[in-house]
Amino acid sequence: MYQSDKIKMQLQCPMPKLDFDVITLGHGSGGILTNKLLDSGVFNILSNPILDERHDGAFINLESKTAFSTDSFLVSPIFFPGGNIGELAINGTVNDLAMCGAIPKHLSLSFIIEEGLKMSEFWEILVSIKFACEKSGVQIVTGDTKVVEKGKGDKIFINTSGIGSIHPKANINAKNINIGDKIILSGNIASHGMAIMSVREGLEFESQIQSDTINLNHTIINLIEKFGSDIHLVTDPTRGGVATVLNEIAKQINLGIEIFQKDFPIEQQVASACELLGLDPLYVANEGLFLSFVSENIAENLLQELQNDENGINAKIIGSVVKNHPKQVVLESNIGGKRVVSMLPGEQLPRIC
Amino acid sequence: MYQSDKIKMQLQCPMPKLDFDVITLGHGSGGILTNKLLDSGVFNILSNPILDERHDGAFINLESKTAFSTDSFLVSPIFFPGGNIGELAINGTVNDLAMCGAIPKHLSLSFIIEEGLKMSEFWEILVSIKFACEKSGVQIVTGDTKVVEKGKGDKIFINTSGIGSIHPKANINAKNINIGDKIILSGNIASHGMAIMSVREGLEFESQIQSDTINLNHTIINLIEKFGSDIHLVTDPTRGGVATVLNEIAKQINLGIEIFQKDFPIEQQVASACELLGLDPLYVANEGLFLSFVSENIAENLLQELQNDENGINAKIIGSVVKNHPKQVVLESNIGGKRVVSMLPGEQLPRIC
Repeated sequence: MYQSDKIKMQLQCPMPKLDFDVITLGHGSGGILTNKLLDSGVFNILSNPILDERHDGAFINLESKTAFSTDSFLVSPIFFPGGNIGELAINGTVNDLAMCGAIPKHLSLSFIIEEGLKMSEFWEILVSIKFACEKSGVQIVTGDTKVVEKGKGDKIFINTSGIGSIHPKANINAKNINIGDKIILSGNIASHGMAIMSVREGLEFESQIQSDTINLNHTIINLIEKFGSDIHLVTDPTRGGVATVLNEIAKQINLGIEIFQKDFPIEQQVASACELLGLDPLYVANEGLFLSFVSENIAENLLQELQNDENGINAKIIGSVVKNHPKQVVLESNIGGKRVVSMLPGEQLPRIC
Repeated sequence: MYQSDKIKMQLQCPMPKLDFDVITLGHGSGGILTNKLLDSGVFNILSNPILDERHDGAFINLESKTAFSTDSFLVSPIFFPGGNIGELAINGTVNDLAMCGAIPKHLSLSFIIEEGLKMSEFWEILVSIKFACEKSGVQIVTGDTKVVEKGKGDKIFINTSGIGSIHPKANINAKNINIGDKIILSGNIASHGMAIMSVREGLEFESQIQSDTINLNHTIINLIEKFGSDIHLVTDPTRGGVATVLNEIAKQINLGIEIFQKDFPIEQQVASACELLGLDPLYVANEGLFLSFVSENIAENLLQELQNDENGINAKIIGSVVKNHPKQVVLESNIGGKRVVSMLPGEQLPRIC
């Protein structure tokens, strides 16, 4: 870049005053700090109408309506109960496309490998990628492989980006959410995060906690086919968990969200692990779970349809959109008390996906 | 993943016998080892007709013909003479799309940041990204930001993936290359690699060697508009340099390639730096350079058009496609001798892009 370009850049884009000078792990948490970093930096500098939508993927108009999404995966450990980083990377981007109401079709695959990774581990990851692609019906069509020196990475990081065509009956947009909309959770919460944490912390239970990583595209496209534009939003509560994503939505729609603790599906041993480690399951990452915001009049039918799907057996209506307390998520606890549930303030579980 | 899935995977996809057990830096070089890793692993396991084309990006048919490309950038240092990792990441994917004959439109942007990166450095990178996007006419439409612990990354890695629509007059495909095709190099070689190396090695010259990172899309689209399907292939010799990419093409088209050392444009101080460090400039990475394989009858006209473009002032015809020595690249040296130029055997310059 020429010197004159540099000066032009500095004049046009002075850095805003921030209350941090260095980036910390909390900035990668998906919570408040991440939002601060993105708001002050990325979204501010790179603003355009498509990016500003801030959905899981971008809607772009080629000839037919298309969704485009990207995600980098750096979960540690790379192999965990229920999966590995390879299938996680495929399912993650497939699901982000599904959350746009798109049928995922083409994925890119980019590896950043730390020198010394065992070829047999790389192979196992590749094979999982192949099977995850087959399961979700996508193809890897382009890729990149890079290697960094020992100590400059951590075994393997994977980026996947994906393209899908929007289902003609889909009309997914937070702007469509109305007062009275029901919020449906597709299954048990906190399984992925606690599967990773239980390995890291060496926790042992009667049976191992398994990550819920799975492709959700077939499940979601089926719902869209049946309920079309009565589905206002689908989104997956990954990093930052259910609490963080609900906060993001409440902020975006300028309405209140009311949820009921007693309705939250959670596996017993996941709940125990959370208690043991002092973690609130509402903030723990999920990988095979999604939230739907739907018209009140179809909520029960959609719930039933979902419960008949292998990925929605434990689905429940967990709350609704209300006029009160706009931009806030209020939880009614098991004992009847109400409290505001905020966004994840810092880093809870680093390197969870 | 269920246990039965794992067993099915192992039976269907046994790992081939390889002459390496761990992945080394050389596997990221873009040379012979990278090819070995990709052939035995990635391409083998994930084979499909679009991926098998092995071009810089994938051609996918949505409604209109579309190109899709991805690249992860991990250059070290992240700021270097002539640019930084941010603009490199934009230009890199923009150029990969241009090499498909596509007009780059939409990019994704994914950061893997090492804890402790200075916010002011991140800001400078973001601003460069913004300007590089404007220069090449693309928009960032989706993204992702992750943070790893100190010592598990190296300041910042960036993945960009991009979508572009194929220019209606473009017909870029190695299969179109014929005996007699002229090979045109768009400018001086080895500038990017030597800019990085001179910083790393603390070399000082009269004036600093600058990276050639730049977006080539406007230049290439202009050529395609003027010369259409007489341009058989355009490709950018990044990692592994000119020698490696010519070898890949010779192998792919099953024809010989003849090049003339005296015709290779190179800046004097870049040549000196290469000599000092014992590096062959033919293997050094470029970022703002491309090779065109074109019909003999339009070669002189295309050369002239290119020399009138700010990105092609130093363009030269450097060789041609021949019937002899299929799959081999033969260099006629300045003193008239001929030698086979092979692919980069291992790692020459790690973390160059």
